[in-house]
Amino acid sequence: MRAGIIGASGYTGAELLRILDGHPEVEVTYVTAHTYAGKKVTELYPHLHRYAGMEFSPFDAGEAAAGAELHFIALPHGESMRVVPQLLQGGARIIDLSADYRLSDPGLYKRWYSLEHSPAGLLDEAGYGLPDINAGRIAGARLVAVPGCYPTAAILALAPVVESGLPGTETAIIDAKSGVSGAGRSLSLASHFAQADGSVKPYSVGSHRHTPEMEEVLSTLAGREIKVAFTPHLIPASRGILATCYMSVGEELAIADIEEMYGDFYTGSPFVVLLGSGSFPETKSVCGSNYCHIGWHLDTERGILTVASAIDNLVKGASGQAVQCMNLMQGWGEETGLEAMGVFP
Amino acid sequence: MRAGIIGASGYTGAELLRILDGHPEVEVTYVTAHTYAGKKVTELYPHLHRYAGMEFSPFDAGEAAAGAELHFIALPHGESMRVVPQLLQGGARIIDLSADYRLSDPGLYKRWYSLEHSPAGLLDEAGYGLPDINAGRIAGARLVAVPGCYPTAAILALAPVVESGLPGTETAIIDAKSGVSGAGRSLSLASHFAQADGSVKPYSVGSHRHTPEMEEVLSTLAGREIKVAFTPHLIPASRGILATCYMSVGEELAIADIEEMYGDFYTGSPFVVLLGSGSFPETKSVCGSNYCHIGWHLDTERGILTVASAIDNLVKGASGQAVQCMNLMQGWGEETGLEAMGVFP
Amino acid sequence: MRAGIIGASGYTGAELLRILDGHPEVEVTYVTAHTYAGKKVTELYPHLHRYAGMEFSPFDAGEAAAGAELHFIALPHGESMRVVPQLLQGGARIIDLSADYRLSDPGLYKRWYSLEHSPAGLLDEAGYGLPDINAGRIAGARLVAVPGCYPTAAILALAPVVESGLPGTETAIIDAKSGVSGAGRSLSLASHFAQADGSVKPYSVGSHRHTPEMEEVLSTLAGREIKVAFTPHLIPASRGILATCYMSVGEELAIADIEEMYGDFYTGSPFVVLLGSGSFPETKSVCGSNYCHIGWHLDTERGILTVASAIDNLVKGASGQAVQCMNLMQGWGEETGLEAMGVFP
Amino acid sequence: MRAGIIGASGYTGAELLRILDGHPEVEVTYVTAHTYAGKKVTELYPHLHRYAGMEFSPFDAGEAAAGAELHFIALPHGESMRVVPQLLQGGARIIDLSADYRLSDPGLYKRWYSLEHSPAGLLDEAGYGLPDINAGRIAGARLVAVPGCYPTAAILALAPVVESGLPGTETAIIDAKSGVSGAGRSLSLASHFAQADGSVKPYSVGSHRHTPEMEEVLSTLAGREIKVAFTPHLIPASRGILATCYMSVGEELAIADIEEMYGDFYTGSPFVVLLGSGSFPETKSVCGSNYCHIGWHLDTERGILTVASAIDNLVKGASGQAVQCMNLMQGWGEETGLEAMGVFP
Repeated sequence: MRAGIIGASGYTGAELLRILDGHPEVEVTYVTAHTYAGKKVTELYPHLHRYAGMEFSPFDAGEAAAGAELHFIALPHGESMRVVPQLLQGGARIIDLSADYRLSDPGLYKRWYSLEHSPAGLLDEAGYGLPDINAGRIAGARLVAVPGCYPTAAILALAPVVESGLPGTETAIIDAKSGVSGAGRSLSLASHFAQADGSVKPYSVGSHRHTPEMEEVLSTLAGREIKVAFTPHLIPASRGILATCYMSVGEELAIADIEEMYGDFYTGSPFVVLLGSGSFPETKSVCGSNYCHIGWHLDTERGILTVASAIDNLVKGASGQAVQCMNLMQGWGEETGLEAMGVFP
Repeated sequence: MRAGIIGASGYTGAELLRILDGHPEVEVTYVTAHTYAGKKVTELYPHLHRYAGMEFSPFDAGEAAAGAELHFIALPHGESMRVVPQLLQGGARIIDLSADYRLSDPGLYKRWYSLEHSPAGLLDEAGYGLPDINAGRIAGARLVAVPGCYPTAAILALAPVVESGLPGTETAIIDAKSGVSGAGRSLSLASHFAQADGSVKPYSVGSHRHTPEMEEVLSTLAGREIKVAFTPHLIPASRGILATCYMSVGEELAIADIEEMYGDFYTGSPFVVLLGSGSFPETKSVCGSNYCHIGWHLDTERGILTVASAIDNLVKGASGQAVQCMNLMQGWGEETGLEAMGVFP
Repeated sequence: MRAGIIGASGYTGAELLRILDGHPEVEVTYVTAHTYAGKKVTELYPHLHRYAGMEFSPFDAGEAAAGAELHFIALPHGESMRVVPQLLQGGARIIDLSADYRLSDPGLYKRWYSLEHSPAGLLDEAGYGLPDINAGRIAGARLVAVPGCYPTAAILALAPVVESGLPGTETAIIDAKSGVSGAGRSLSLASHFAQADGSVKPYSVGSHRHTPEMEEVLSTLAGREIKVAFTPHLIPASRGILATCYMSVGEELAIADIEEMYGDFYTGSPFVVLLGSGSFPETKSVCGSNYCHIGWHLDTERGILTVASAIDNLVKGASGQAVQCMNLMQGWGEETGLEAMGVFP
Repeated sequence: MRAGIIGASGYTGAELLRILDGHPEVEVTYVTAHTYAGKKVTELYPHLHRYAGMEFSPFDAGEAAAGAELHFIALPHGESMRVVPQLLQGGARIIDLSADYRLSDPGLYKRWYSLEHSPAGLLDEAGYGLPDINAGRIAGARLVAVPGCYPTAAILALAPVVESGLPGTETAIIDAKSGVSGAGRSLSLASHFAQADGSVKPYSVGSHRHTPEMEEVLSTLAGREIKVAFTPHLIPASRGILATCYMSVGEELAIADIEEMYGDFYTGSPFVVLLGSGSFPETKSVCGSNYCHIGWHLDTERGILTVASAIDNLVKGASGQAVQCMNLMQGWGEETGLEAMGVFP
C-alpha cells in the first residue's frame, strides 16, 4: 500500500518515516512540508538516510489523492481540519495525529482550542484511535483521530479502574512527566537545552488541552462523569512519558482485585505489558518502541491506588499508535512493523 | 568557630566543605571518613581545591572534642547514633544530617529503619532542623536533626495549608521528583548513568522512609493526624527536588485565601520565595543555592489545590539547611554564608 | 539457526537479545550469566519483555554444544579465552565480543592486558570482525573477534586515508568521545550519574587498551607502521561514540581526492554512510542502529585533515557488528536483522 | 562602585548579575535589554530573585553615563562597537564581552565577522582581558575586551608551551567540547533539547570565529606565528568547555620540563589550578566557578603532548573573567567576589 505523510517535517512525521521503513506492507510515496518544501528528508534528518533522495513536497490535494491510498496527517491542530475533508473526498483513508478530531463536542473543541470546528459533522465519524479500548471502531473507520500522548499514557493507566465502576474513582489525579520532544521540533525557550537540562517543572497546570480529551474518553468508558486534575511536567529527557495516577479507592479493594481488573482489561492488547503490583515502569524501557508498561501500588492504609504507565511519546503516544491503527484499518496483524522492543540503555 | 564534619567523604560532606569555605565565621578543622581515611579531600573532589592539603582522618571522639566546637554529622543512619552521645559528652554542639534524630518515637524509628534506637532519650532533646517552622527550638538546641530532602520540600509546600486546619487536607498526595545525587555517592544500578539517563521512574512507592517523617511533622503542625501518600521518582538530573503536592480542598477556598496563607506563614523566612498563583518553580533555578521556590494552582472546578516546591536536595535539602541551623544556634545572621543564588542555566 | 549468548547479562548481551529478536533466521536458545544465573532476563531488563520466561543459566560447555550452533561471547577479556576452546571443540562457530582475539601478537596482548594468552594458536585463526575491511576473512572463519567500540569508529574514519599511503599519515590523533554505556553495566564512580552528568573529561590518556588494536589494524591496512595518539573522553550520554581524527596531510591533497578515497573504499559497505566534505556526523543519528556516519574537512591552509565518524557503541561498536559478522559467516544477507535506522531524536 | 550591564537579558548578562550580587564593592544600578525592555529581571530569570523589582531598561547613552562608572557590555558583536564610543565619551570604563575588540587587525575582523570595524582606533586601545597573560595591560585600560570562551580555555592550555619556543609547536590541534549555553539563550535547532540531548557533534569545523583570536594571542605570546586547527563540538551539558590540545613536541621533552613550564607560567594566577601530569580535568569540577583546571600527558613514544583545560564557559569563559578584569582595573583583590568553588556534583 502507498502511504502519504502530510506535514512530515516534524518529529512525528520523522518517526512515521522511521517506523514505516520497516513495515512490510507499506511504501511511503508522498511526503509534504510547508516551510521545508523542496528540501531533502536527510537534510533535516540525517538518521533517515534510507530515504536519501526523497524530498518534501508542498501539499496539493490532487497529488495527495493520486499519490497514496492512506494518509497520515501530522499537521498542527487547526490545519488538519482544513485538509481532511479534501483528502476524504479524494477517497483516501486518514489517520490524523493532530487534536482536531479527538473531541466529539465542537463546543468543547472551541473552548479549549479557541477555534471553530468545521465541518463539525466529521467529529462524529472519526474513530478515537486508541486500539486498546476502541479496536472495533478503528477497524471500520475511514478517519481515525490518534490520541494525544498524555491521554494515551493516562487512559491506559486508568481505564481498567474507572471502567470497573469502583466508588471514589470519579476524580483522578494525573501527575505526568514528559520528555522534551513532546513539545515538537519548533523552537521555544522551554525546549532550549540549557533551560531544560538538569531541571524539572510543572507547566500548563490546570489548563493543558489534553484535559478534556482524557475526561471525555474516561467518562465514556466509565458510563459516568470522570474528572481529572492533570499536571504535566517537563523532564530532561528527549523521549518518554510517565503518567503517575492517583485515585481514592477506599479500603475495600484488595491487590488481587486490581491484578484481575488489569489482566482482564488488557487481554488481547499486544502492546500493554503489565508489570504487576509493586513493579513500576521506567520510560527508558519503552524508548523507541510501541509498548506501554504499567505497574501499581495499593496503599490500603490510606486508601489510595497509585498506577504508573510509561510510553514513548513519539511512538505509542503518536506515530507508532498511528501505525497500529493503520494495521487494524487494513486488516493486517496489529503488531506488523511495530515489534521492536525498547532501545535500552 | 572551628567546625568538624564527621563522615565528610559523601556528597553532603563535600557540600558542607563547599559552603563553609565561604562562611565568614567558621573554619573547618576536622574532617573524617572511614573508607577514605588518609586520602586527600581533593583526590575525591577536585572541585574543592581550596582545601588542597586537607586529609580525611579516621573518627576519634577525643580528637573530635579537641578539634572543633561544633560537628556536622554526615554518616549513614544507624552510625550517627553511635557517635552523637560521645560528641555531646565532649561538649560539642551537633548538627546531624542522618535520619537518626528526626522521628520522636523510637518505635516508629524501629519500624521504618529496622534498628533499635539508642539512647532513646536523645530523641526528645533533638530539635527538628527546619528553620522555617522550628527556628526557636533550633536556636536553643545542642543537637539538631536536619530533615530529609523530600520532607524539606514537601513540608515547605504543605505547611501553610495543613496548619490552617482546612477540611479535606487530612490526606495529601506528594509526587516528588529527585535528582540522582539524592541517593548519595555510593554505587548502585539505579544511579548508573546509563540506567538513569533519559528515564524517569517511581521507586520505593508506599515504602519510602521519609513518609513517617513527613506525617509526624505535618501532624504536629496541624494538631491532628495528617496522612501522606508519597511517591518519589528518580529523574535524570544531578541535583534538585520538585515536590508536586495535591490536596482536596473543596470549593469554598479562594485563590486570595491561599495567597494570604502562604504570605503570612513565610514572613520572616529568608529562604522561601513565593512565586504565587499560576507560577511554578523549576529545580534548576535553585541549583547550588539554599532557596526554596513555591508556586500553586487552585482548581476550583475539581476542588483540588496543587502546590509545587523546588529545592536543591544537597543544599536546602541537606548541607545548606544544616548551615542555616548552625547560624541560628550560634546567633549569627540566618543567611550568613548562604546568600548565593542558584547557578542557572 | 539456534544461537547462544555466553555472558548475556551485560549491556552487549542485552543488545544481542534485542537485535536477534528481530532477526528472521535466528532463535536465541541458550543464555548464560554467572552472577545472575537463575534470574529472569526481564528482571534485569524489563525492556526485553518479549523474552518473558527466559532465564540466565550458568555456563556449561556440554549444554552450550547441545543448545546452539553458534555462540556470541560477551564475557570480560580473560574469561573469554577460557571458554572459546571448549566451544570450538563442541563444533560451534564463535563470535567473540571480548578483547581476547583481537590482537595477533600474544606478547602485545600480555603487555596491554597483563595476562598470558592461551592457547596462543587460536590468535592466528581468529578473523578480525570488521566487515567493512575484512569481509572475506570473516565469511570463512569459525572464530571471529569483534573489534572494540573505539577501534571500530576510529578505523572506519581513518582506513581510506592510511590505505592510500599518503605521506604524513603515519601518525593520527584520535580524540574520541564515548557515552557511558561503553564502560558496561558494572558499577564505578566514573559511571555514577551524578559524576558523569553535565561533565566531560579525558580518561586513560596514553594508556587505553584499544590503542594497540587500532595501530595493528591500521598498520596492516597501510602496509607500514601507523601510530595513533588516542585520547578517549567520557560524555554525558548513554550511547554513542564520536571519533574526531586528525592527520597532517600536507598541502597537495584536494577535497576531491578525499571524496574519491572514501567513496571507493566504502563501495559495498552497506552500513557506512558518507556525509561528505563539511558535513559532520552526530552520535544521536545512529542511536540504536548499526550505521556509521562519516564526514570530513580539509584545512588546506594548515595542511590538516579532520575526519569524524559516529557509531552506536553497543550496536556497530559491539552487538550489531557481531550480528553483521554472523550474517557473513552464515551466508545470509549482510543487512539481515540490522535494517533499523537510528532512533532520533 | 556602580556598574551597568548593557545587554543584560542573555546568559552572560544573567551570570554577571549572579556574580555581582556577591561582590562587596559593586552595586548593579543600570541594566538594559532591547527585546525585554520593561520586563522584570525575575520574569526571565526566576533564580535571580534577589533582584526582585529590577527592570530592564532600553539603552540610553545619557542614562548610562549618569547611572554607572563602569559598564559591562554583553551585546552581540557588531552592536557593541556602536555603543562603546558613546560610553567612553561619557567617561565610563568598559568591559566588553563581545568579539568586537578582541582582534587587533580590522582587516581580520572584517574577514571573520563580515563587518567593517569602526572606529578602528579603539582596537589598539583595548586591552585583551585574559588576566593570566595580560594583567598589567588590563589594570591600566579603560576598555577591556573579554576573550571568547574557547580562546580562554585553549590559550590557558597552550600558553606555557608556545611561549617556551619549543620546536614543533607552531601548529596546535584544539579539539574543544562545549556545553550548549555557549551558544547563548537565543533559539536554534542546534540548542533544542531533543536535538542536543544524548548527542555529540563537531560544528563550524575550520570556520569558527574564535580561530583568529587564538592564533593572534598565541602568536603574540610566542613571538612567531602559531597556527591552530580548531574543532569545536557540542556536548549535552548546559555549561563547561573542555579543550583537549595536541602538539608535536618531539622526543627531547621530559615530563619534568612541562611541570616546570606550567608551574612557572601560572605562578600568581589565582584561578588556574594545575592538576599535573596524568591528571585530567572535568568540566563539572569548575561549574559555576571562575577556576580553570589543567592537566597533561606526554606521549614520549609518539612525541605528542596532550594538554586539557576545563572552564565554565559562562564564568571564566565570560562573566567571571569580566569581573576578574574589573577587579584588576579597580585595584581590588583579583579574587574579590569570585572565590566560589565549583558546584559539584
